[in-house]
This record gives sequence, C-alpha cells and structure tokens, in this order.
Amino acid sequence: MLTSTPFPKSFASDNHAGVHPAVMAAVIEANTGDAPAYGGDRWTREMEDAFRAEFGDRATVYPMFNGTGANVVGLSLLLRPYDAVLCPVSAHINTSECGAPERLLGTKLVPLAAEDGKISVEDVRGQLSALGNVQHSQPRVVSISQATECGTCYTADEVAELAEFVHARGLLLHMDGARLANAAAGLGCSLRALTTDAGVDVLSFGGTKNGAMGAEAIVILNPELDASALFLRKQAMQLASKMRFVSVQLAALLAGELWRENAAQANAMARRLAEGVTGLPGVSLRYPVQSNSVFPALPEKAIAELQQRYLFHVWNAEERVVRWVTSFDTTAEHIDAFLADIRLAVQAATGA
Amino acid sequence: MLTSTPFPKSFASDNHAGVHPAVMAAVIEANTGDAPAYGGDRWTREMEDAFRAEFGDRATVYPMFNGTGANVVGLSLLLRPYDAVLCPVSAHINTSECGAPERLLGTKLVPLAAEDGKISVEDVRGQLSALGNVQHSQPRVVSISQATECGTCYTADEVAELAEFVHARGLLLHMDGARLANAAAGLGCSLRALTTDAGVDVLSFGGTKNGAMGAEAIVILNPELDASALFLRKQAMQLASKMRFVSVQLAALLAGELWRENAAQANAMARRLAEGVTGLPGVSLRYPVQSNSVFPALPEKAIAELQQRYLFHVWNAEERVVRWVTSFDTTAEHIDAFLADIRLAVQAATGA
Amino acid sequence: MLTSTPFPKSFASDNHAGVHPAVMAAVIEANTGDAPAYGGDRWTREMEDAFRAEFGDRATVYPMFNGTGANVVGLSLLLRPYDAVLCPVSAHINTSECGAPERLLGTKLVPLAAEDGKISVEDVRGQLSALGNVQHSQPRVVSISQATECGTCYTADEVAELAEFVHARGLLLHMDGARLANAAAGLGCSLRALTTDAGVDVLSFGGTKNGAMGAEAIVILNPELDASALFLRKQAMQLASKMRFVSVQLAALLAGELWRENAAQANAMARRLAEGVTGLPGVSLRYPVQSNSVFPALPEKAIAELQQRYLFHVWNAEERVVRWVTSFDTTAEHIDAFLADIRLAVQAATGA
Amino acid sequence: MLTSTPFPKSFASDNHAGVHPAVMAAVIEANTGDAPAYGGDRWTREMEDAFRAEFGDRATVYPMFNGTGANVVGLSLLLRPYDAVLCPVSAHINTSECGAPERLLGTKLVPLAAEDGKISVEDVRGQLSALGNVQHSQPRVVSISQATECGTCYTADEVAELAEFVHARGLLLHMDGARLANAAAGLGCSLRALTTDAGVDVLSFGGTKNGAMGAEAIVILNPELDASALFLRKQAMQLASKMRFVSVQLAALLAGELWRENAAQANAMARRLAEGVTGLPGVSLRYPVQSNSVFPALPEKAIAELQQRYLFHVWNAEERVVRWVTSFDTTAEHIDAFLADIRLAVQAATGA
Repeated sequence: MLTSTPFPKSFASDNHAGVHPAVMAAVIEANTGDAPAYGGDRWTREMEDAFRAEFGDRATVYPMFNGTGANVVGLSLLLRPYDAVLCPVSAHINTSECGAPERLLGTKLVPLAAEDGKISVEDVRGQLSALGNVQHSQPRVVSISQATECGTCYTADEVAELAEFVHARGLLLHMDGARLANAAAGLGCSLRALTTDAGVDVLSFGGTKNGAMGAEAIVILNPELDASALFLRKQAMQLASKMRFVSVQLAALLAGELWRENAAQANAMARRLAEGVTGLPGVSLRYPVQSNSVFPALPEKAIAELQQRYLFHVWNAEERVVRWVTSFDTTAEHIDAFLADIRLAVQAATGA
Repeated sequence: MLTSTPFPKSFASDNHAGVHPAVMAAVIEANTGDAPAYGGDRWTREMEDAFRAEFGDRATVYPMFNGTGANVVGLSLLLRPYDAVLCPVSAHINTSECGAPERLLGTKLVPLAAEDGKISVEDVRGQLSALGNVQHSQPRVVSISQATECGTCYTADEVAELAEFVHARGLLLHMDGARLANAAAGLGCSLRALTTDAGVDVLSFGGTKNGAMGAEAIVILNPELDASALFLRKQAMQLASKMRFVSVQLAALLAGELWRENAAQANAMARRLAEGVTGLPGVSLRYPVQSNSVFPALPEKAIAELQQRYLFHVWNAEERVVRWVTSFDTTAEHIDAFLADIRLAVQAATGA
Repeated sequence: MLTSTPFPKSFASDNHAGVHPAVMAAVIEANTGDAPAYGGDRWTREMEDAFRAEFGDRATVYPMFNGTGANVVGLSLLLRPYDAVLCPVSAHINTSECGAPERLLGTKLVPLAAEDGKISVEDVRGQLSALGNVQHSQPRVVSISQATECGTCYTADEVAELAEFVHARGLLLHMDGARLANAAAGLGCSLRALTTDAGVDVLSFGGTKNGAMGAEAIVILNPELDASALFLRKQAMQLASKMRFVSVQLAALLAGELWRENAAQANAMARRLAEGVTGLPGVSLRYPVQSNSVFPALPEKAIAELQQRYLFHVWNAEERVVRWVTSFDTTAEHIDAFLADIRLAVQAATGA
Repeated sequence: MLTSTPFPKSFASDNHAGVHPAVMAAVIEANTGDAPAYGGDRWTREMEDAFRAEFGDRATVYPMFNGTGANVVGLSLLLRPYDAVLCPVSAHINTSECGAPERLLGTKLVPLAAEDGKISVEDVRGQLSALGNVQHSQPRVVSISQATECGTCYTADEVAELAEFVHARGLLLHMDGARLANAAAGLGCSLRALTTDAGVDVLSFGGTKNGAMGAEAIVILNPELDASALFLRKQAMQLASKMRFVSVQLAALLAGELWRENAAQANAMARRLAEGVTGLPGVSLRYPVQSNSVFPALPEKAIAELQQRYLFHVWNAEERVVRWVTSFDTTAEHIDAFLADIRLAVQAATGA
C-alpha cells in the first residue's frame, strides 16, 4: 500500500479521482433551504429535462447511488423470474458486483466468452436454443458494457446490430454505461447515437467515474419498460431522500457537455500513456486503447517496481497484464512522469 | 402541491431540509486530489475512529447511502434464511421500505401491535412459541426504532430490558436509529448509553435527517456479527466508490457533538410547536412529544386549510391526525409563524 | 409421543391418514411401462380433462407436490416484485410455511385480523391506502383459505363479494383450497361454484388431505395468468418427472366425485364429534364446525389426559383450545370411542 | 411426437420408466392406517437406519420430491448469501433447473469448461483468486455430478482429490448423485466409497431414475452442516406430509442393494447399445460409456429417421450428437431391436 502524502495521481481507477469543480459548485448551489424529498424538487426536474434533451423526449431517468445499483435496478425492469441475462464473461455485473444480480434479482447470468470484452450477434445466437424449454432459464436480456471493462468500445452500428437481432427474437438490450461518456468521446458521437438511436432499451448512465461525487442513473429508452421503475428503485434501496444533491451532479455533467470534456481528457491521457509504452522491450498492449484505460503486459519485475510508487491493478497475473486507468483530472505531466518511471522500471527488468 | 418560491419551511419531514454548513464544508474539504476508493481513504479511517470513540472500541461502522440500505444490510447480518424479524407494526422496515426486507433478505416480518410505536418484552414473548417448530419462521431479531416513527423514545433502561430478554433466548436486538440523535438529545444521554451499553447488537445510524447530505451507517456493536459485513454491503449495492464524501459527513456530525446540537434544535422546535397547539379547540396530541415530531388531531377543515400553505403529511385520515416534523434548521420564527396560521385555521374550522 | 402399535386413529391432522384405496389403485394402474416425463403422459392429459370438466373449459391445472408448493407457485403467478399479499393472520401461508412466500417470492404478507379465519371486504379496504405510494408494498393479492384454518367456510356469495371488490380495484383473488373439498361438501355445492363462478383467479387444490398419497395442484381460473406457469413450476422445484403418478391421484379424486364422498365422511365425523362434546362441563366450541375440524376449549387436565392416548394439537395454550381433525377414513366407531374417553377425561378434570 | 400405443421403450431418459415392482410393493405396504406426518412415522425411521448403514453412522438423510429440490436444498446448507458455486458448465444445476439455484438461493453459479462433464482440481484452482475480494462472489462450494450429465464417472480417488483440495481452502464439496447408483455400479464400489469416504459434504441421492416413483434425498455426510436442514427443507417446499410413502421408496432401493441391481442392468444395456453401434459408418461415441447413457454422433438423416419411431434427445444439434439413456427395465430385446433399426437408418443415411 502506498503511504506517500499527498496521495499521488492514481492509475488504479477513475473513481480514485475527486469531484470536478463544476459538479461541486452545483452541489453547493442546491443547498438553499428546504425542498421536497425523493425527487420532488426542482433540481431533479431540471435534470430530467436535460436527459430528455440528450436522450430523446421519451427517455425517463432515475438517479441511483452507484453503478451496481443502476445495473441491478435497470435489469430488474427487464426480467421475469425465470429469465437469464447473457453478458460477456468480463462484464461488471458478472465479475464485480459480488453476485448482486443473482442475489437481489434471482436471475441467472450466462457468461459468454469475449476476447476484448465485446460480444457479437453470433455469441448471442448460440444461446437461443434454450428459448421455450422449461428446463432452462430463458434468455431475455443481452447486457453489454460501453465502454467495456477492457477499454474497448462498440460502434453505434455494432450496438444497433445487436439491438435489432435481440429485438427480433423478443429479447431486450441493456447497456452498462458506467463509462458511456468515454465511449462517446472516443467515438466522437453523441450519447444518443450509441443508445436511443441504436436501440438500447435500458441504460446505466455513469457519472461518478466522469467527475461526479457519487451519481449514476438508469435511463429508460424503451417507454414500455417504465411502469415499475419508481417502485423497483425504492425497493432496491436506491431512492435518495435529499435527491437534489444527486440530481444536480448529473445535470452538471450534461450541461455544456462537460461529460465529453472530462471523458476526452481521460481518453487523451490514456492514448498518451499507451503511445509512450509502445515499443518498450517486453511491453505489449493487450487490448486496443479506445477509451480511458490501458492494459499492457509488462515484465514481472517492472510491475513490482512500479507498484511501489503507483496505484494500479494487476489484470491478469499469469500473463503479467496490468490495468492503468486515467480520469478527467489526469494531466500530461502525470502521464509523462509515470512514463519516465515506467521506462526505468522496464529497463531495469529487461536489462535493455 | 405547493408552488411558492422560495420553498417555505417544510413540516413534512426532516429530510426536506438541506445540508448543515459544517457538513458541506467537510465535503468540500475532502475534495483534494485522488484517494483510494471503497473506503481505503484517510477520511474514512478518521470517521471510523470517531465512531469507536462514540460507541466503544469494538464498534465497527459501515457507511450506507440511505436508511433502507442501512436497515436491510444491518438485518442481513443477523438472519438465517428461515428467520423472522419481530417489529412494531409502525416500524419503517414494515411500512415504508416497499417490502425491501422481504424482497432482498427473504425474511418474514412479524408486525406487533404498538400503541405509540414502542414494543415491550411482553409483546415479544407472545411470539416465542414458534421457536423450534419447523412450520414457522423462527423469531430471531427484534427490531426497534429509536426515536420511533411516532416520535416516542425508549429509555436506556427500556432498551436494556429488551436486549436482556432477547439475548437470554438466543435472539438479537436491532435498532433503526434513523433519528437516534433526536432520541439521545431528548433523553439527555450519550449515543452509547442507548446502544452499546444497553445491549443493541446492530444499529442503523442516521445522518441524513440530522443535517447530512446523504449519509447513514450501520454500526455493529456485537463484534461476533461483523465477519460478513463487507461482502453484504457490497452485494446490497451500498458500497460507495468515492466513499470519502460519505464518511466526512458522518464524521462532521460526530465532531463536537454537532449531532446533538442539530437534534436538540429540532426537538426544541417540536416542543415549541406542541406547546403552541395545546389547548386549541379540537386539537389533541396523539403521542407524547419526545423527539422532533408532533402528531396532533386537528379539525378536518383546518388540515385542508393548512395544507394550502404548508407541507406536511396526514398520518391517519380517519382520525384526522397529522404529522409535523422539525429539523436542525427549523427556527422559532418558523414555528411561531406556523402557529399563527394554525390558530387561524383551527378558529375558522371550529368557529371558536 | 404415542408409541402404541398399531398406531391409533389420529385427530392431529387429516394428513395422518393413509391413501384411499381408489387412489392407490390408480397409482398401481399407471405403472405400465414407459411414459414421457414431466407431464407429457396420457394420464396427465386425462387429469387435465377432468379438471376442465369440473372447473370450466378455460381452467388449466398443474400438479404440485405439496400445499406449500401449490400456494407459493400459485401466488408467484400473481405478483410483481413489489407487491403484497393480504391474508388472514391465521392463513397457512402466514403461519405454517416457514416463511416460504417471503423467502421464495420475496413478497410481503400483510396479516389481517380474522376472528374465525375469515376476512371481509372491509378488512381489505383498510389496506388500500397504500396503493400508488412508492414507500409501501403494493396490495395486489387477497388470499383466503377455503375451508379456513379454523374450519370455517366462506359461502359462494362471500367469495364472490371479495372477488368483485378486489377485481374492481385491480387486485386478484387467491384461494388456498387445501381443504376445498371439505368446504364444498359442507356447503353442498360444486367445486366450481366456490371458485370459477365466484371469481377466484388462482386456486391451490388440495388432494393429500382428501385421500391422496401426495398430490396438490394449482388451478388457474383466470386465463390471463397462465403464461408463465410452466416455467415458474419448474423453477420452484415442483415439476415431477414421473408426473403420471401424481396426476392419477388427482384424477381419482375427481372421478365420480370421490373428493365429495371423502370430504363428506370427514365432515360428518367432525359434526358427530362436536355434537358429542356439546354440553360437557368446561367444554365450549371456539369456532362453528363447518368442515372437518373441531376446536373445543377443554379443561387443562383433560387435555393432558387425552394426549396420553390420542394425537392432536393444542391450538391455543393460553385459552386451552385444542384442534381435532377428522379424515376420509375416520369412522363413527373412532368418534364414539374418542368421545367416551373425552367424557371420562372431562369428568375427572372437572369433578362433574 | 410418438403416438404409438402401447408406448415403446424410451431412450429419452431413465425417468420415462415406471416404478420397480419392489418399490411399488413397499408403497402399498406402507398404506396401513394412520401415521404421524412430516417424517414422524416408523417407515421414515427405518429408512434413516438404512442410510446410516450405507453411508456411515453420522450421515443424516432428508427425503425430497425431486432432483432440483434435492440440489437446491442441499446447496442451501452450504452457502452464505455472497457465495458462489463452481460447477461444470454441463451441470444439471447450471443447465436444467430453470435457474432455481440463482432464484431460490440467490447464489451465483460459476460454470467451468468440462470436456466430458468432469472438472479437476486445476479447474477449481483457477477460480480461487476471487477469495477475499469483496467485489467478487466468494467461491464456496464445488458441485460435481456423479455420474455426470455426459455419462462419465469420477473414480473414488478423483472425488477424494477434489474433496481434499477444496477442504484445504475452506470450500465444500457437493455431489449431485441423481445417478450415483449408476456410477457405483459402473465402478464396482459401494455408495459410501464414492461419497462419505471420499470426502463429499452433501449428497443429492437419486431414487427416481433408479426405479422409484418419485423419491430423492439429501444425505448430509459432514455433520456440521446438519443444523438447519429441517427448516430449509420445509421452507423450500420439499417437506412431504405423508412422508412414509416417499421414505419407503428410498428404503426399498437400499434393501438388498436393489439400487445396484437396477443400475447394473441399465449400465449393461448402455454398454450393449454402445458396442452395437461401434464401427457403424458415420457413427462415433462422443464420451466414454461409463454409466447408463450413450452419446453417439450419427448421420443427420439417421437421427431424423430414428426419431420417427423412438424417443430420445438431440444433445448437440450442430455436431449431430444424440443421447440415449437406458433404465432398470431396459432389456436386451429392447436394445437389439433398437440396434437393428439403428443399423438400417445409418445404412440408409450413408448409403453404406
């Protein structure tokens, strides 16, 4: 564990960053006297307007406390008791929510092999023979992450192809967009192009990793799925009483596309980092860098050396792959200093 | 619905209030660069120290997003799959969590009649014949609210009597302390006297209604129950990634007993309000005023008239009982203005 | 515990009885070579025909292993995740299923006071203020037992009144008919009159207590509720592989109204028993005897004395009420011998 | 669908067979007057004695209605709310219980690749990095099927190696023994050698596929896991009221090792079938034949032709693999007639 003070720039996760000043300003501004609880306040209405402007007039939005909450409540809108969710084996819902979907929804997750975190129509098709067979959980939802946990992104066309395929078979498309902003910034398109327009039914919209203090949301893009959302959010312990302080964070990220500015900075820094390690001896990138994370394989000794001074996670110990994540406040200076240390560590490890 | 701007002082709930300035200052102060996520930060450690100082060296504390989350996760530490929770029929877990305990824990709640929100040893005893009978859910936990949903409080002795009784029979005592601060301020004792020292096993500690932005916690006072807490919190979607911003709110309330100052102000305003309506024609108090809420029966016309201008809930329509709740920032001016309007409304309704 | 051999006629429960010879004969007859599993066999089809003849053309029937299974699967057809079931406090689902509805369905049961096991429209009405309020579990299903756990019965008109009331408010009516045969025999009407024609949506049909070896069923009378039944039964572990051996039991009970013959005998023996104790000193009947159980208050010493020689349960220890249940094979000789012993025990206890 | 009458010998599943005469005789014999319900009868006690004789003095046994029930209740003894079950991707609990483990237990299943239905220590080891990480479901149980769903068997040494490995890491070993009899008969060893002596913690013991009418059981071999079994069985809707009729089926299978006789016959017929198709053009066996099922790849036309006259399932459509299952009452005549038709169908399909 690192003990230096002040704490250095972390490459462990974009949730190690603090709060963007504009988000904090919005929180402070909302602290003016009383307001109805549970979303009956004017800030929440303004935030809802902003989401409709972004995602279309029929979109409804429900603030959530965290990403697991958004995913679980979002999926709960889509599932009958005997349904299964098809997802990449690397999906956050499958690997990093301590079994919340199974426990809280009682649903089966069917993990699909996914080289770079992405699944295709063919991966889904292979599971559909279960449909109608009472012995099997019924495939009902395909859940994809955008950007993926591997830092890769689906193009709008790829999302649309999945949506069209699953809708034609009576299934629904869920998107875990904890890093949707990074995907949209990376692809140079709108949030809507990757979601509403591509046929996503329910979206987990991520704010926390994009500069918020703690604010996620589900955005329901298929209006037929909205009826139970208020009850399911409340029951799932995701209803904030002083909701205005969550809503204003989301609104602040949408205002003037602050989300894009934040994500673009993080993405640019990830590219700078990736370019800086390209060509170093014993270093290779495991996945293409399409958002704000970099997954290099490094010499084992270099990993150990770097972890003395920097926070980051080992992604695959056996293959010596680590994960570096950048955030809205990662600067070129942070990257260049890190790169200098990386070069030294690799040099020492390889004798090159 | 009231539409006046600015929004007037609300008597609907203490969660209509905003954030106490000292809490907001703490949140702002914590926004300094990176910090490990999920509670690995220094602010969370300091908050933990503060809770140990308050509740004893063996207490462990886990921040939660909201009260339902705190209650559900806290209860989850105490229950086997076939256990039941005995609670007053008026308990928040029974009436106001949209069935979260049943849905998320799979547990049975056994509601006990409770005139003023409080239950006694005798109420519990009547349920214990189920013990050992495989046809019945097994009574395992007694859950009490402090202060109760009726604004009444258990004395430390009353809590201790319940704890002793249930422990002697292998049961456990849970306390929903969403308004523990109000109870302690009202009784003039420490938080510890009502919890650790009285034999409570697990406590839901409320911050939001006491001036926080959104911060609750479970405090485990029986160390044998701590082993699974980290996993159960994560799985229950209550693990904040940027936890420092929740932890500092809790720490700010404990610092210098800000919690008592806030609660004492709310309690004093409730008493001022209660005293002000005492003796008005057609007005009677349904429960003794022991914390920060007042439950008067009013003439029906007076209720309708007052709801044109003030936010508050009808508690029992048939018996014309309403609920007025005060908060840390309710002032004597708020109360006196409200009282003036109440007197007019009652006068008009009764012709007195 | 009684240890006599052979085991004497039990008054503890109608499930202490064995299997009616006609049911056993049907089981034996079905054991002829191979048959498709999971209900694809001809005996199951014949049983389905018999249920349609009894309950109407649109009724669908699904064999279940036991009463708890029938109730839980039946209710699962009716409930959204945030719904509540309103039922008498004495309901089997509330008292005697070890919390299965809460655990397996995640549903909240709202127990209603019910003097003799029956609830009325007024009892239900008092709970409906929760409708539409996101803080509350949503009343969705009213569940009644027919005959009740107190041995009383709803008339067809009483069932219809409840059904009409709940349907008008968007709720559904569930009937736990573990002893429906006893009710119909007691009321002198058809099974259909008390269910399909009265507006019941889903019925748990009891066979085991009526002479089967182990066979219950859910009968779906509201065809809109049928779509998920096959999946929910399978998932709820209630799908018999060699289903023919369950189906033939149900069919045997329907054939020639064997169910009525069995129930009428049990009911007649309960009346004979009730009449026999009427007027004994210190003896009074707690509930009217309308099916096959008798609930007398007895002198405490008489209870102890009788339990030396007979199996039966104490229903309410404080009030010295016991429960005597008769079955299809209880005979007048059984009753008269029991009555003789009862008279002696009461005499000894009261000195009368 | 086949419509011939009488129904021909099925190769679809061993649960298409009827009831072995000795089992039926035992059921008939138990129908003698009254007996306490829920397992308080003498037949259940005798059955328990028989299981102790077979599995060791510390084994406890609980009758269940079906295999899904046995697996779910058995696993429920082993799991904390945040635990995962590691199992082969082909496991019945993963593929054929309609998500019951996820729904009813809330547990995560982690499917492991398994070429022939068997997993090894190395497969398990690869999942253990999740231990202690709060983001991940905690691997707690390894569940294996014996015989596997592919008809293969673990040797006693292979079971013991898995048990030793998992116990050393604080995990537990569950065995789905729906066809344990077939495995023991195939391996020529006792039931105990493959279970108690090999270190299995909890066993699902199969009776239905071995000649019972409908009788499975969980056998708890690790006595520390027994405490909650009665409550968990009841809550899981698997408590038979007239339990004697289930218990006697299990006892009949154990008496004089009827289980072995039944299983040996089925196994022998599977071998006869496998040998008969060996060498046919276009036919190859997918898995070694170690119990009572055969998985040949066949020419597509031959599959279609044979399904006109025989019941069996296609196992893998893409690879043209079918599954043939034999049962206790499959005879050499059945096999030889089937083989004759197979040869004709293959000949016609291949022109050989």
